[in-house]
Amino acid sequence: MPYELYYWPSIQGRGEFVRLALEEAEAPYVDVARKGAGGMSAMLRLMQSNRQAHPPFAPPFLRSGKLLIAQTANILLYLGPRHGLVPAGEAARLFAHQLQLTVTDLVQEVHDTHHPISTELYYEEQRRAAKQRSEVFLKHRVPKFLGYFERVLAHNTGKGFLIGGRLTYPDLSIFQILAGLRYAFPRAMKRIERSYPRVVALHDRIAIRPHIAAYLASPRRIPFNEEGIFRHYPALDSKR
Amino acid sequence: MPYELYYWPSIQGRGEFVRLALEEAEAPYVDVARKGAGGMSAMLRLMQSNRQAHPPFAPPFLRSGKLLIAQTANILLYLGPRHGLVPAGEAARLFAHQLQLTVTDLVQEVHDTHHPISTELYYEEQRRAAKQRSEVFLKHRVPKFLGYFERVLAHNTGKGFLIGGRLTYPDLSIFQILAGLRYAFPRAMKRIERSYPRVVALHDRIAIRPHIAAYLASPRRIPFNEEGIFRHYPALDSKR
Repeated sequence: MPYELYYWPSIQGRGEFVRLALEEAEAPYVDVARKGAGGMSAMLRLMQSNRQAHPPFAPPFLRSGKLLIAQTANILLYLGPRHGLVPAGEAARLFAHQLQLTVTDLVQEVHDTHHPISTELYYEEQRRAAKQRSEVFLKHRVPKFLGYFERVLAHNTGKGFLIGGRLTYPDLSIFQILAGLRYAFPRAMKRIERSYPRVVALHDRIAIRPHIAAYLASPRRIPFNEEGIFRHYPALDSKR
Repeated sequence: MPYELYYWPSIQGRGEFVRLALEEAEAPYVDVARKGAGGMSAMLRLMQSNRQAHPPFAPPFLRSGKLLIAQTANILLYLGPRHGLVPAGEAARLFAHQLQLTVTDLVQEVHDTHHPISTELYYEEQRRAAKQRSEVFLKHRVPKFLGYFERVLAHNTGKGFLIGGRLTYPDLSIFQILAGLRYAFPRAMKRIERSYPRVVALHDRIAIRPHIAAYLASPRRIPFNEEGIFRHYPALDSKR
């Protein structure tokens, strides 16, 4: 039986980190909410149901047989060992998850560049704070996060992946992070990414993997847009 | 050999979720950075070292034998099964972690009530945005999160815990969440918490567990203060 992935149908968002893992693994899955109006209502029903023993707080969530699993990093924790996307040892698995949780933190900070006050308000209603937050984000936080991943890659000498000699699920997430940051902040990233050549090389290496390349070229990959986590608001990018 | 917990020595912060688990389990641990100036420099050295195969992005991190584990929820994922703080089944373990990651999300939102623009700036430099963010946080986000945990507790009928019939590590984190929200927003919480009697009852049940009660009464429990995640700034609380 294929996995059922539940996520908002019109954005990459947090669901994309799960989609990339499923696509790389060629795991059969249904992107439920993208299957017409029925899929979306099925997702909302599941979220509001009082009969779920393990209700999700928010999408994405994954159904695998009897299991219903929510929280992006938790879904990847589950999928990793099942699809060879993480090594067998305890230390490596904990480290993979640690890196994924660091990606989670970064994703939240990306989101808050355009919504620093509240998701209840439109971007247009918090533009001033968004500009301030984006400036500090580009100046301090992006270098801190990318510098950290660069350091992890540098330590894993000559392998080109974050952990050991093979791809793991956080590698796929780093691809998405770099692609997203480039989309949202093209001017700033042109300058910033020069300092993180290993992160850039990892992104490029992931992009040409056959399953990922096929996915990116397919209609299954939703284009970046201004409803997702990574939004291109020129006012929030650096001036040059 | 005792665990070594590395965390900022003067705040509860994210480290507190780990401390509560270690204390409940009576697991021997050293709170390294609280052992004088030497402890703090040991922590900073570890963070800056290029020789760590698995470097942490930020505290807290835990040393257990040869393992160095970072990210609060990841540390609890590791400690849970070792100390009977999570059931044996896969579904229950994934759900415990899912709840913990939801706590992680909430903790970040609490932090951002006083630092909506940047951790690089003082609260005083982002007071206006902090007031706005706190208002929406108290109106929308606290009810959404507490309502979710209340629903999980209600579904686990009559047990008084989040999962099954025994305490798990996210139960301890819910205790900390309620204690922290009460400290930070006493006026708002007096009103809000009435709607979440099961969450309040869980907090009260945890507070009187012998190991937790002993910990809370000990000097090991750092008092809440205005350097941590939960800060009491009366201007951010509701007016009554």
